[in-house]
Amino acid sequence: MSVDWDTLYAERLQGMTTSVIRDILKVAQAPDIISMAGGWPEAALFPVEQFREVAEYVLSEQPEASLQYGLTDGYRPLREKIAAMYRQRGVPISVDNVAITSGSQQALDLAARVFIDKGDPVLVEEPSFIGALQSFTGFQCRYLTVPLDEEGVNLEGFCRACAQKPKFAYLLPTFQNPTGVTMSLARRQQIVDLAAEAGVCILEDDPYGQLRFEGDHLPSLLALNAQQYPENGALGSYIRGDVIHLGTFSKTLAPGLRLAWAISTPEIIGKLVMAKQGADLHTNALAQTMACEFMRRGWLPAQIARIRETYRVRAAAMQEAIAEFFPAGVQTTHPQGGLFLWVTLPEGMNAVELLPEAAAHKVAFVPGAPFFANGGGENCLRLAYATMEPEVIREGIRRLGEVIKAHMG
Amino acid sequence: MSVDWDTLYAERLQGMTTSVIRDILKVAQAPDIISMAGGWPEAALFPVEQFREVAEYVLSEQPEASLQYGLTDGYRPLREKIAAMYRQRGVPISVDNVAITSGSQQALDLAARVFIDKGDPVLVEEPSFIGALQSFTGFQCRYLTVPLDEEGVNLEGFCRACAQKPKFAYLLPTFQNPTGVTMSLARRQQIVDLAAEAGVCILEDDPYGQLRFEGDHLPSLLALNAQQYPENGALGSYIRGDVIHLGTFSKTLAPGLRLAWAISTPEIIGKLVMAKQGADLHTNALAQTMACEFMRRGWLPAQIARIRETYRVRAAAMQEAIAEFFPAGVQTTHPQGGLFLWVTLPEGMNAVELLPEAAAHKVAFVPGAPFFANGGGENCLRLAYATMEPEVIREGIRRLGEVIKAHMG
Repeated sequence: MSVDWDTLYAERLQGMTTSVIRDILKVAQAPDIISMAGGWPEAALFPVEQFREVAEYVLSEQPEASLQYGLTDGYRPLREKIAAMYRQRGVPISVDNVAITSGSQQALDLAARVFIDKGDPVLVEEPSFIGALQSFTGFQCRYLTVPLDEEGVNLEGFCRACAQKPKFAYLLPTFQNPTGVTMSLARRQQIVDLAAEAGVCILEDDPYGQLRFEGDHLPSLLALNAQQYPENGALGSYIRGDVIHLGTFSKTLAPGLRLAWAISTPEIIGKLVMAKQGADLHTNALAQTMACEFMRRGWLPAQIARIRETYRVRAAAMQEAIAEFFPAGVQTTHPQGGLFLWVTLPEGMNAVELLPEAAAHKVAFVPGAPFFANGGGENCLRLAYATMEPEVIREGIRRLGEVIKAHMG
Repeated sequence: MSVDWDTLYAERLQGMTTSVIRDILKVAQAPDIISMAGGWPEAALFPVEQFREVAEYVLSEQPEASLQYGLTDGYRPLREKIAAMYRQRGVPISVDNVAITSGSQQALDLAARVFIDKGDPVLVEEPSFIGALQSFTGFQCRYLTVPLDEEGVNLEGFCRACAQKPKFAYLLPTFQNPTGVTMSLARRQQIVDLAAEAGVCILEDDPYGQLRFEGDHLPSLLALNAQQYPENGALGSYIRGDVIHLGTFSKTLAPGLRLAWAISTPEIIGKLVMAKQGADLHTNALAQTMACEFMRRGWLPAQIARIRETYRVRAAAMQEAIAEFFPAGVQTTHPQGGLFLWVTLPEGMNAVELLPEAAAHKVAFVPGAPFFANGGGENCLRLAYATMEPEVIREGIRRLGEVIKAHMG
C-alpha cells in the first residue's frame, strides 16, 4: 500500500511561513533588481583574510578541537571569551552562563522546545522576527501580541499580556527586526520590573546590539535583570534571573558560520543544552575554534567598528532618499543601528500588492504582514540598507517612491 | 515574584538521557584510562592537511558561498556531489532528493519533529542508537521495540510492530549502533517489502556503511525500496518511495564539521527542510563548501580506504584479544565494519555495576542498558576499537577480561 505521507506528518508544520520568504527572495534575486529585501549583512565586510589566517592556525594547531566531536554546550575557550566580553560591559556572567548555539535561530528553537507545549501562550512584539515566529509556531503555541510604540514594546499591552501567563516574552529591544525601533532606557527598566513582578521569563534577542552607529549604548534587559538580584554582582555570575539573552556572530563576523550564544542562569542553560543534545549534538567545531582565535587576537572590535561605519553611511543615504522621494503620508522609523528600517504606508494600502509592481521597476522589499503573528500589517514593509552602496540605495528608494506614488495617486 | 523555572519547562525534557552519557564520558576521560567508551572516529585519520588546503581555497575563491547566509536545503553543488555518489552505487536519486543537515543527529530530530506527535508509536531496534532515542523521546513518542537477531531486526517482531502503525521504523541496517550487527541481504528485502505492505515509512540511518573492512557491500534499504517503483529508475530520481535515508561525513571526514544528509522523495525532503528552517536556518556554509571541494578533488575514496584499513586492523586486534582474555559465557558480535562491537555478559550480570571496577582497572566501556528504549540490556556493553592502537586494545581487553572474570567468579 506504500506510505500515506500526507496524513503522516504532524499538523504543526502546516502553519509555517517558509513559502512566503522563499517567494520574496525569488523576486529579490532577479537580475538587475535593487533588493532591499535581505536581512543579510554586507558580504564585502566579511573578514576573509583574517578567516584564512585563523582557519590555517586552528587546523594546524588545534586539529582535534576543530574537527572531533565536541561538547554540547560549546567550545569552552569560546564560551569564556563571550562571558568576558559581557563582563567588560558590566554584566556579571561567567562561563557557566553561556551556551554556544548553531545560530540564534537554533537558540529560539531550543527555547520553544523547552518551554512551549501545544496551545501555550507566548508574548511577542507586533511586528516580530519571522524566523522566531516560525520556530514558535512549530511548537504550536498561541500568540499574545503587543504593539510597538516609539519607545519599544507598549507598556500597557505588555502588562495585559503578562497577566495571561505567557511561557515567555520574546523581545528584540535593540534595532528591532523588522522595525529598527530601540526600546528606551526607561522602558527597559519598566519592562524588566513588570516581567519580574508577573513571573514572566524574557527571551531577549540581541543580534544587532553591537551595530549601533548613532546614540549611546543602552544596557540589555539581561544587564538590568541581573542588577535586580544583588547576589549576581557579588558572585560575578548570573545565578538568579529571569532572562534568556541571545547574541550572535552572524552580523559581526559572518552568518554562514552559524555561530551564536545563549546566556541565562546555569539552570536554564542546562535545560537548553539538554534540548540541544537531541537537536544537533553540538555546534560546528571548526567555526567555534576560528571565532575563538579571532577574538583571542583582539580583532573583533575593529571588525565591528568597520561594519558600524559602513551601515551608518548607508542608513543615512536611505533616510535622505526617503525624505526626497517618498510621498507625504508614508511614515518610516529612524534606527540608530542595525540593518533595516520600517515603512508604514497610508491605511488601506497593501504592500504585498505593491511587490509585483516594484519588481517591474526593479526594486524589492519585504512586505510587513508576515511579521504580524496574529495578522495585520498589510500596509507595512521592511527596507534593508546594509548590503548596498549609497547611490544604489538612492536609486532604489527613488524607484520605490514612484511605485508608492502611483499606487496612492 | 520572579520566574518559576521548575514548573515552566515542558515535561518532555524529563525523559532524556544526557546525564548517563555525561557520567560515562567523565569516567572514560580519567587519566591513563583505556577508553573503549567513545563512539568517535580516530582523530589521527582526520585529513588535516587536505582540510587546510580546501579551507584556504574556498575562503579565497568562494567567500560568499562559505560565509554568507545559505539555502536551508544546503549548498547545491554539495547536494549534487552526494546525489552523484549514490548514483554511482546504482541508487537512482537526483539533487532534489538530498538535503544537507547539521549532522545526522539533526536529521533524526527533524524526522521526529515532522512525524511525531505526543504519544505516537515509533518502531526502534532493541538495542538502538542513544542519540536517536533522545531526539524521539524529546517529542514524547512511545516505543515499539523489536529485538535484533544475527541477520538484523527480527522479522516476526517487525511484522507485529508494523501492525501497530508506527509513525516510522528507525533502522540501522549496517554495522548497527550499538551492536555492530549487519542486516543480511535477504532480511533487507523482506523488511523493505513488509514495510511497504504495511504502509510504514523506514528511517534508515547509515553512518557507517562506507566503513566496511570485510565482506561484500550490501544495498541500502533506500536502494531496495527505490527498485520497488520502476518509475524511479526510469526517471533517475527517487520520486516514489517510503524511505528516509541518512548519511554523514562524521565518520569519513570529521564529526566536528557537523555535516550530514537526508535522502528521500522531494515531497518528504521539502517537509524536513521546512522543519529545518525553524531549527537552524541552514547548516554551516564553510563546512559545506569545504566538503564539496574535498569531493571535487576526488579525495574522498582514498580517505575512506585509509579509515577502513585502520579499523580493520583494530577490530581484528579486539576480536583476538577477546578470544584470549574473555571468559567462556561472554558473547560478542563480529562486525564487518564500523566502530564497535557488542558484548553480552551472562544473564544476571550488570554492566553498570562493572563500570566502577573497570575504571579502577583503568579501562572504560559504555553499558548497554541506555540503548534499550523500553528497558533491559543490563548484562550488555559496547566496546569501541576505532581510536586505539592494537596493543592498547589488547591491554584494555585484558584488563576488562579480568574485571569480568572477578565478577563471574
